[in-house]
Amino acid sequence: MTNPVLADVLRGDQVESRHRGSVVVCDASGKTIMAVGDTNKPVFPRSAVKSIQALPFVESGAADAYGFGNRELALACASHNGEPEHASLAQSMLERAGLSEADMECGVHWPTLQKSALDLASSGRQPNQLHNNCSGKHSGFLCTCAHEGIDPTGYVGADHRLQEMVRDAMENVTGAKHDPAHRGTDGCSIPTYAIPLKNMALGFARMATGEGLAPQRAAAAKRLFEACMAEPFLVAGTDRADTKLMQAAPGKIMVKIGAEGVFCAAIPSIGVGIALKCDDGAARAAEAIVARVLEIVLRDDKDLGPKLKALANPVFRNWNGIEVGGIRTPEAYA
Amino acid sequence: MTNPVLADVLRGDQVESRHRGSVVVCDASGKTIMAVGDTNKPVFPRSAVKSIQALPFVESGAADAYGFGNRELALACASHNGEPEHASLAQSMLERAGLSEADMECGVHWPTLQKSALDLASSGRQPNQLHNNCSGKHSGFLCTCAHEGIDPTGYVGADHRLQEMVRDAMENVTGAKHDPAHRGTDGCSIPTYAIPLKNMALGFARMATGEGLAPQRAAAAKRLFEACMAEPFLVAGTDRADTKLMQAAPGKIMVKIGAEGVFCAAIPSIGVGIALKCDDGAARAAEAIVARVLEIVLRDDKDLGPKLKALANPVFRNWNGIEVGGIRTPEAYA
Repeated sequence: MTNPVLADVLRGDQVESRHRGSVVVCDASGKTIMAVGDTNKPVFPRSAVKSIQALPFVESGAADAYGFGNRELALACASHNGEPEHASLAQSMLERAGLSEADMECGVHWPTLQKSALDLASSGRQPNQLHNNCSGKHSGFLCTCAHEGIDPTGYVGADHRLQEMVRDAMENVTGAKHDPAHRGTDGCSIPTYAIPLKNMALGFARMATGEGLAPQRAAAAKRLFEACMAEPFLVAGTDRADTKLMQAAPGKIMVKIGAEGVFCAAIPSIGVGIALKCDDGAARAAEAIVARVLEIVLRDDKDLGPKLKALANPVFRNWNGIEVGGIRTPEAYA
Repeated sequence: MTNPVLADVLRGDQVESRHRGSVVVCDASGKTIMAVGDTNKPVFPRSAVKSIQALPFVESGAADAYGFGNRELALACASHNGEPEHASLAQSMLERAGLSEADMECGVHWPTLQKSALDLASSGRQPNQLHNNCSGKHSGFLCTCAHEGIDPTGYVGADHRLQEMVRDAMENVTGAKHDPAHRGTDGCSIPTYAIPLKNMALGFARMATGEGLAPQRAAAAKRLFEACMAEPFLVAGTDRADTKLMQAAPGKIMVKIGAEGVFCAAIPSIGVGIALKCDDGAARAAEAIVARVLEIVLRDDKDLGPKLKALANPVFRNWNGIEVGGIRTPEAYA
């Protein structure tokens, strides 16, 4: 099936580009509240499910053993900008477990935030693996290995004990079988498995409510979601959609972007999970669409509405600061 | 109508994202050789038509008066990376006409090529308008004003004499009326008019052959296209699709990307023009699709085929250098 257009990109008052995709909203029992487009097709969740992948880090007792609080838990769920605060916190997590940047296997890239990259360069420095947007997740992985006495070497491999723990948590929480035939390699080298979008939304609803999860897992899920909502800057950073969305509704909504146009979200107070995939992989569209879906689901919230509407319809300005267009999402889907 | 999928994005062997769009190939008489999707819908050509917008720069005699050759003409048609060679050539063009960076109205951004941005920062410098990817076009505009005795102030405005000259050239070459109701503002502040994709391809076929153009215009068009094909680095830069495509077939193909997934191309030897728009605005898809369309149109060229096929099916590697996927374009369209 052809997915519907979920966001238009305008230049002046003309539609210049458009983004198609699928969205599903469901509760922790799996009951569908809203579904647009094909929500059964396997989709790579990429980084949108880092909070689920962080369950072994909490459940193993590693996070407590090293004295970690909301900040470290949020960073373990992050795709961050590589700002100084992100990189230094990842370093301190590793140090607490007697590890270092040299133990990481995520690879090096310049900070995602251009200002941070330019600041590094202007001070004559080079980036390292702590600046990788996944460095918090990898620090959590490494701390889990250290605490469990697992040799961390090759911890990014699909057959490594750590990735087996992560996969077990993912299968349990999302209810979707993780099939090696649907496996790909993520940007930071860990495996990623394509699963139906519906299962990603279900997983987020379960994480938010604890329903359908064992008590210890439900408690770990609650801690991770609350940590992200308490420390939204650490989950992404300056000018990022995740951070702005969670700052707009403190403690009310949990969101996480994934590469290639994926977004997951949850609203713990009403027990719903949301997952969406922009067909073409565009982050700009996924960011606007998730804001619109949250606005639709939370339409009774008169305070939050205007903030979400603004994020659902961002304005583009050119290099001279002139408004040249923007993204327009519809008032309703389906 | 819903445009067809023109490129799949793979992760492992799974389709992760897909890009829809439209393509048209025609000759200078307007005869359609290949058409895929909706080729009549107005599309903003953005920077893909800079070579047509540079006609007044040559036709007015400005380029000759200031002693410019292929290098300056290519830069006037460029969306460049802001590498030192690009910025310094734009500066020398302005100086030749007694002008400076202060006369530019394109706005400032850091060089598009990350290495050039980091090099600037690490030497303690800031970017200026010469680093704007459109600085060559703006230098051409300003030199035209200087040569013609036109006050350059406000030269980016739709009602300025310079933009009237540009619009007249665009209407004549593409055969499409430039309707103020279909006007938007480009990233560098000049007007851009949505016109049917078919007219963009027709314009490129006419530029390549001179057919349907007045003799002086045909000569200027030939000079501009030959300049771009002779100096492909100056049209874009390091690692850029335009540069690689033109380097793959010296003097044989002329290509130019535009923002939001547009690409125009021409093959002067067989007199065809090509235009395509990726619906969602993705440059990665437009770059692969144009290579595939060129490969299809030039299928008899056994030397060029493998080079174009490689550019039509780029491989993605992650931060550890591991191959994680790529873009796959089909052997045939329509």
